Amino acid sequence: MSFNTFGRVLRFTTWGESHGPALGAVVDGCPPGIALSESDIQPYLDARKPGTSRFTTQRREADEVRILSGVFAGNDGIQRTTGTPISLMIENTDQRSKDYSDVAQSYRPGHADYAYDAKYGFRDYRGGGRSSARETAARVAAGAVARLIVPGVAIRGWVSAIGGDEIDAANFDANEIGNNPFFCPDAHAAKRWEAMVDAARKDGSSLGAVVTCEATGVPAGWGAPLYAKLDADLAAGMMGINAVKGVEIGDGFAAATLRGEQNADPMRPGADGSTPQFEANHAGGIAGGISTGQPVRLRVAFKPTSSILIPVPTVTRDGHASEIVTKGRHDPCVGIRGVPVVEAMMALVLADHSMLHRAQCG
Amino acid sequence: MSFNTFGRVLRFTTWGESHGPALGAVVDGCPPGIALSESDIQPYLDARKPGTSRFTTQRREADEVRILSGVFAGNDGIQRTTGTPISLMIENTDQRSKDYSDVAQSYRPGHADYAYDAKYGFRDYRGGGRSSARETAARVAAGAVARLIVPGVAIRGWVSAIGGDEIDAANFDANEIGNNPFFCPDAHAAKRWEAMVDAARKDGSSLGAVVTCEATGVPAGWGAPLYAKLDADLAAGMMGINAVKGVEIGDGFAAATLRGEQNADPMRPGADGSTPQFEANHAGGIAGGISTGQPVRLRVAFKPTSSILIPVPTVTRDGHASEIVTKGRHDPCVGIRGVPVVEAMMALVLADHSMLHRAQCG
Amino acid sequence: MSFNTFGRVLRFTTWGESHGPALGAVVDGCPPGIALSESDIQPYLDARKPGTSRFTTQRREADEVRILSGVFAGNDGIQRTTGTPISLMIENTDQRSKDYSDVAQSYRPGHADYAYDAKYGFRDYRGGGRSSARETAARVAAGAVARLIVPGVAIRGWVSAIGGDEIDAANFDANEIGNNPFFCPDAHAAKRWEAMVDAARKDGSSLGAVVTCEATGVPAGWGAPLYAKLDADLAAGMMGINAVKGVEIGDGFAAATLRGEQNADPMRPGADGSTPQFEANHAGGIAGGISTGQPVRLRVAFKPTSSILIPVPTVTRDGHASEIVTKGRHDPCVGIRGVPVVEAMMALVLADHSMLHRAQCG
Amino acid sequence: MSFNTFGRVLRFTTWGESHGPALGAVVDGCPPGIALSESDIQPYLDARKPGTSRFTTQRREADEVRILSGVFAGNDGIQRTTGTPISLMIENTDQRSKDYSDVAQSYRPGHADYAYDAKYGFRDYRGGGRSSARETAARVAAGAVARLIVPGVAIRGWVSAIGGDEIDAANFDANEIGNNPFFCPDAHAAKRWEAMVDAARKDGSSLGAVVTCEATGVPAGWGAPLYAKLDADLAAGMMGINAVKGVEIGDGFAAATLRGEQNADPMRPGADGSTPQFEANHAGGIAGGISTGQPVRLRVAFKPTSSILIPVPTVTRDGHASEIVTKGRHDPCVGIRGVPVVEAMMALVLADHSMLHRAQCG
Repeated sequence: MSFNTFGRVLRFTTWGESHGPALGAVVDGCPPGIALSESDIQPYLDARKPGTSRFTTQRREADEVRILSGVFAGNDGIQRTTGTPISLMIENTDQRSKDYSDVAQSYRPGHADYAYDAKYGFRDYRGGGRSSARETAARVAAGAVARLIVPGVAIRGWVSAIGGDEIDAANFDANEIGNNPFFCPDAHAAKRWEAMVDAARKDGSSLGAVVTCEATGVPAGWGAPLYAKLDADLAAGMMGINAVKGVEIGDGFAAATLRGEQNADPMRPGADGSTPQFEANHAGGIAGGISTGQPVRLRVAFKPTSSILIPVPTVTRDGHASEIVTKGRHDPCVGIRGVPVVEAMMALVLADHSMLHRAQCG
Repeated sequence: MSFNTFGRVLRFTTWGESHGPALGAVVDGCPPGIALSESDIQPYLDARKPGTSRFTTQRREADEVRILSGVFAGNDGIQRTTGTPISLMIENTDQRSKDYSDVAQSYRPGHADYAYDAKYGFRDYRGGGRSSARETAARVAAGAVARLIVPGVAIRGWVSAIGGDEIDAANFDANEIGNNPFFCPDAHAAKRWEAMVDAARKDGSSLGAVVTCEATGVPAGWGAPLYAKLDADLAAGMMGINAVKGVEIGDGFAAATLRGEQNADPMRPGADGSTPQFEANHAGGIAGGISTGQPVRLRVAFKPTSSILIPVPTVTRDGHASEIVTKGRHDPCVGIRGVPVVEAMMALVLADHSMLHRAQCG
Repeated sequence: MSFNTFGRVLRFTTWGESHGPALGAVVDGCPPGIALSESDIQPYLDARKPGTSRFTTQRREADEVRILSGVFAGNDGIQRTTGTPISLMIENTDQRSKDYSDVAQSYRPGHADYAYDAKYGFRDYRGGGRSSARETAARVAAGAVARLIVPGVAIRGWVSAIGGDEIDAANFDANEIGNNPFFCPDAHAAKRWEAMVDAARKDGSSLGAVVTCEATGVPAGWGAPLYAKLDADLAAGMMGINAVKGVEIGDGFAAATLRGEQNADPMRPGADGSTPQFEANHAGGIAGGISTGQPVRLRVAFKPTSSILIPVPTVTRDGHASEIVTKGRHDPCVGIRGVPVVEAMMALVLADHSMLHRAQCG
Repeated sequence: MSFNTFGRVLRFTTWGESHGPALGAVVDGCPPGIALSESDIQPYLDARKPGTSRFTTQRREADEVRILSGVFAGNDGIQRTTGTPISLMIENTDQRSKDYSDVAQSYRPGHADYAYDAKYGFRDYRGGGRSSARETAARVAAGAVARLIVPGVAIRGWVSAIGGDEIDAANFDANEIGNNPFFCPDAHAAKRWEAMVDAARKDGSSLGAVVTCEATGVPAGWGAPLYAKLDADLAAGMMGINAVKGVEIGDGFAAATLRGEQNADPMRPGADGSTPQFEANHAGGIAGGISTGQPVRLRVAFKPTSSILIPVPTVTRDGHASEIVTKGRHDPCVGIRGVPVVEAMMALVLADHSMLHRAQCG
């Protein structure tokens, strides 16, 4: 199957290929009356936009979003959501008319090339077609709408490791994230990564990365157990991002090395006498699939970009041994531009669950 | 919301609480004509069953499954699925009539107690109610049906680490898995774990674990990109299991430390001249959200059981500081009995995707 | 496919065959805190129960419902919904162990026999298996739960025609509905129908019927256009009932014979100065797929029972010409017992949409 | 809620308002390898297009469809579906910049105006916004894709009554349908309707209509009982079309007037010795929610257009009594242009069920 809708009551559907005329998302179920214009979305697309530093692909896309439906300006002149589906479109402008014969004939290991052929019988090989990370622009646009649905929630993502080199928690400075091309909150790590990514790029290689994302302001009670648990929906949303191979909620795999008393998040009465406080957050803000009121925190593993200039053995479509070098414009570390995508999926899942919770529990 | 259905075309819905009269699953969409009786399901329930060694909870449940619908014996006397919903029921028999006043009044940190109260206003506190791992019996029963839908797929899970102590790949022996109470394929590790779990149990503590699961015989082509990718659906299925905090496909977080050429799974022509072979499986058998024909491999992190005898600070329902000791019968390492559950979810996701693939691609 | 779940956020899944051990429904998504016990459900099952007069099938079923999950009695001793799935089970007790060789070998025209064989390859022929109207007991039980979710809505159905003989609107008396075995609000019509149904029964024939159902107290604003319109969901719910062949909202097909000014529902200011009033209700309380605040009114056409004693030409499973007489215990007019089922589906759709509306619009 | 996706495995999502820049549909789940270009879709849009005779609205829209994704031309130059989502867009070009103050301030009875305001708090009043029948262009485009998925199925709709004046079955000539502006298969009726519709138009009034639609070539076995029955999904699809108030499968309400033996569809052995034949089709080709192999036949009631020049009492948004005359360009009988829409929904439901059936039954 092809299945291109995500969400339960706030639902979005994306469409488009890397080298088609455009790509887009239809966001359905958004509450009415929310002020929304292109300028609410564009900054998030700009954060994800390619070609902004030498550490990302050099494809140049304006990534300008247009809202084609679902909004209306009333007498006060402010354009608001009407409650009907919001169609967002981004035109492709820099599809390079290069020769795709290599990719058309041979499978790039690590890419979806062979899997798409095996599934569908043929594929749009231009720039990866539907499997291109270019589609994540549609998610980022949809995510910008989702943020407006949960205005009390603040979502912030960053790169916490590149090529196995982790940031130092002691150096964490949220203000630093926007100061370097790596969404890195640790100025020292950013410096190191600059050298690392440059070296990998020059080698024709690539690097993996870990993205951390945190949402504060999520009230206790969101999540729809047992099969639409908040953490399960987040895991689905994150694992579905291109190049992602692992997801952790809270301490994740580290929790598996702990003893029960180490992993406990002790509680104490809150200052207001009603809402309890937690003295730790190993759980990442989710228990039993439901938010606890603590920050929702997760980590996402991105593999190194599969498109590299170092030759890899492969086979051709007609079954012959070959070797492939993936030329073209690629991110040396695809995890970097994953930050806005992870944030967008976080926003979409949280907004959906805020509405799901209201449906049942008022 | 409460949302208790999983799957897209093969769908199952579970119901039941830890201390209610029974629990069950309705499996819908199963193809007709598959021989099915209780004896096809019972062995998997027996593998998950509590009380079989001192390393699991001492609650004694027969966990006998009854098939209440969806099967019919024709002239040959063989009972087969009819294509209609299969209702599976397991009666609870060993709910202990103990005093629940502690748990009723105070929140057990790490448990869903507080989150359920915050969401629903009150909760069935007897044995954890709906949030109890007892519900996973229903998944295991449903998973046994799913296995019959994909008879060419072999699914095998094992515990690969307890309390941070990993098995040695050199000692891996699949036949060993059934020979110890830990689903451990490494006889040496099993020996070590025996001492570790015993010690934790005696301390009134608990241990985390990692479960690995592998499915062989999955053909290339299963998965429904972009929002029902095979890995995303697996991640949702696994992260929704009680106590799970992390999911990795293939190399997972380790892939984030590699360079592109290290992480590549080189291809070469297959012996039959048509199906390509892979020289590595960093990807865990999934590319672009679609199976590649390699074994599908994943790892799942289970946190240590939250129910411990070591006191943890907490608050009462009415907001006072307290301390809680979780008495009762509990698994000292809940990840151990997670193995049959992980296998069941793997089977359910794969069977669903085999049918989804057929729907679109014939 | 087999697809046995209905609803969007309030969802129910049914299972069970006519001659299996039991049948049931799992109601998922119900808000927490609603007082619920078997006694809230049983009266609706009793209204639908077979064998209560000579005008229905003589199969004797107690149709006693058991609640197996999803409820909990707190300190006040009142059992309430917990927000988790509610499993309802009804045991079959009067499956007659007759010889089914006729039905097993030949297709009963008008029944699902041939269609099930064509779809699934074989079928449970005992009493119609899954296609039996006996399954509607599960819907009635689920519908009783749904009514509690929308306590401000009053739902009332009645038979408005049998065998083409319609009630006289001038004689309409709601109190009469419970006074005769036909759910007939017109005492004179009930008298005529008694003779008609008796005659049909004695002839070994059967009669069709029309059921009308009205819901008052539905506020304006329910419905999820464009593809979950309130009327579309009602149409799906009604058309899915056994033996139903037509659904009308408001004036239905009669509206197709009118001119625009005749079909208009003029509006005038309401007494309270805010909520408008309507001077007619041709629309049946729904415009643009959304409730208008008027009574929601619909009509449902039931075909005559296909099981008749008059021989009908048919074919055997192996393709030979035959003739079939459907012995056994059958309703001479299946539409009569359709009333509680139509009411139940109305309740389920309205409760679902009350929650869907709240999800988006607060 | 707003819910704008229809279908189960073949799913389409529509977006767009009457006076926005464009409208469109995303068709997801379409099998790969089907030749598809704009020219496969355009003829169906042309059949629905406004402004082609004096019997439809005089709004002039080219209704030119663009395919923005989901297709790819391989080496043979033929553009085919790739299995990924197909985005279809139609630009609005003739939104008339008239003054909407009347409609903005007052509710048009029979329209969705009041219901949208009650639900969402405000509405896009330009041309009816999202509730405009203009959206059906997106369904027609999606339906054209669906037809290609079930190439063995022939779908044909026609108007069978206008203003209560029915066609004469004896005059039925399929070739006549395209010869008059009414999709009327009876040349005599078409003549009468010309006068009737002209008269209604001159009176500033409007007329209701009945559309009949038949699909031949549907094999036995499609349908997903019990809650995605083929007839239930068709009913939902049809009742969701603008202005529809009734749906009948086969004989529909007429079946409710018959006796069992009259309504039976007797069977006899087929010429090929295997597939049975039916001697009648009261059932409209569906039994137990599953197709029987007979033609699938249904009837749909369209109310008269609510937009009329005859004044109707109404209220203003601020609750004052008023009267409204709906100027602008409107269809005097909206049922006429309903024919391509009914056909499209029939195609979409059948294509979806062909795939659903394959998912479970191979």
